[in-house]
Amino acid sequence: MNQVIDTILSHRSIRKFTEQPISDQQLEAILNAARAASSSSFIQCVSVIRVTDTEKRRLLAEYAGGQAYVETCAEFLVWCSDFSRHVQIKPDAKVGFAEQTLIGAVDTALMAQNAMLAAESMGLGGVYIGGLRNNPDKVCELLKLPEHVYAVFGMCLGHPDQDPEIKPRLPKSIMVHDNDYKRIDEETLAEYDEQVREYYQTRTGGNKSTSWTEQISATLDKEARPFMKDFLRRKGYLKF
Amino acid sequence: MNQVIDTILSHRSIRKFTEQPISDQQLEAILNAARAASSSSFIQCVSVIRVTDTEKRRLLAEYAGGQAYVETCAEFLVWCSDFSRHVQIKPDAKVGFAEQTLIGAVDTALMAQNAMLAAESMGLGGVYIGGLRNNPDKVCELLKLPEHVYAVFGMCLGHPDQDPEIKPRLPKSIMVHDNDYKRIDEETLAEYDEQVREYYQTRTGGNKSTSWTEQISATLDKEARPFMKDFLRRKGYLKF
Repeated sequence: MNQVIDTILSHRSIRKFTEQPISDQQLEAILNAARAASSSSFIQCVSVIRVTDTEKRRLLAEYAGGQAYVETCAEFLVWCSDFSRHVQIKPDAKVGFAEQTLIGAVDTALMAQNAMLAAESMGLGGVYIGGLRNNPDKVCELLKLPEHVYAVFGMCLGHPDQDPEIKPRLPKSIMVHDNDYKRIDEETLAEYDEQVREYYQTRTGGNKSTSWTEQISATLDKEARPFMKDFLRRKGYLKF
Repeated sequence: MNQVIDTILSHRSIRKFTEQPISDQQLEAILNAARAASSSSFIQCVSVIRVTDTEKRRLLAEYAGGQAYVETCAEFLVWCSDFSRHVQIKPDAKVGFAEQTLIGAVDTALMAQNAMLAAESMGLGGVYIGGLRNNPDKVCELLKLPEHVYAVFGMCLGHPDQDPEIKPRLPKSIMVHDNDYKRIDEETLAEYDEQVREYYQTRTGGNKSTSWTEQISATLDKEARPFMKDFLRRKGYLKF
């Protein structure tokens, strides 16, 4: 259709990279793309930590649950929600509301997605690393993130050394609703489940055969990082 | 540099649209772009409500604080965090964690940004409508959003009938940090403040002259939607 839509539709997470570095010009373009995103009320509550220190990379890979590509990828960026800047400028700034937790997460994601697409448009690839939230306090300590700043997620970027298939997404008829929310259609879900099962079978040479229903059921059978609420409060979020 | 990066860097919010509709093919491309975004643990916790009903549009414009373009734009999409689907599939799903509030906000924003860029790549324009969170309960009621679903933000899309300047963003040296978080540099901030002041002066023919420091100070002098915490709890978020 056009290069933008083609780039967007070609997205798949890349977890294996060549040793080729990302050039300064490429990194500059990626970070400028990030900065161009919309920001809620122009509040610009996002910081990016570019981690080049090898020991910090090693530790972040460990904190993320042993994801080796965090250590070895060409660039690792940590995307942070940041209201510390505002408190530096206005010490009595009213921060710490649940609303600001949302704004911080949304604005960080808008910026990061611009960065991901800019990278992909130049033939690079990457993956979001939500695993940093496995050890949110340790990440804060390592990167010296003050109160009101925390890592929403990381991002590995580099030259792809793999070419995975595109993962089938929930059908549009399930994700998009007309005027009113509607419940999931069982038949469409069953078809989609079969599609996901085939995707995993192909990708793993038959070793994995999981439907979407099975996968999300396993994921939501466990508590989701139950420590996050206290963590966010300690960092000056979710207080009010 | 390339069409993707050019599109990203050309972003500015559009709030005035011609009456020309968005074609079915364009809308299809926009929604497919949204679906192609990354999803945390493949959880796919996003729903989009496409609002075409004129009375609903009128009410949403009112709920958003009287933003008329919500009523008149070619397409209005409401981007929702959605864990209801998962509960429909697995009634004992463990949802309601602060972590899932983050995942819902992040995944919704990743999808929405793909949609925005796809639209912009076709010569359309748009604006995010965080104002829907002024009246979150009324929005839920109007769109029949069940428990575990809420509107993170709306999005107006259409053919631009204005050509505003690009707003100057925080300099890279303030937004990007190397290995450790660093405090804001006063001198760089002062230069940026002047740049923002000039931007507003040009845009308003001298009627508005506000620096970034002044603007965020005014914004953060007030409580940020203090009802959101209770609202999120009532909707089955932030319980744990």
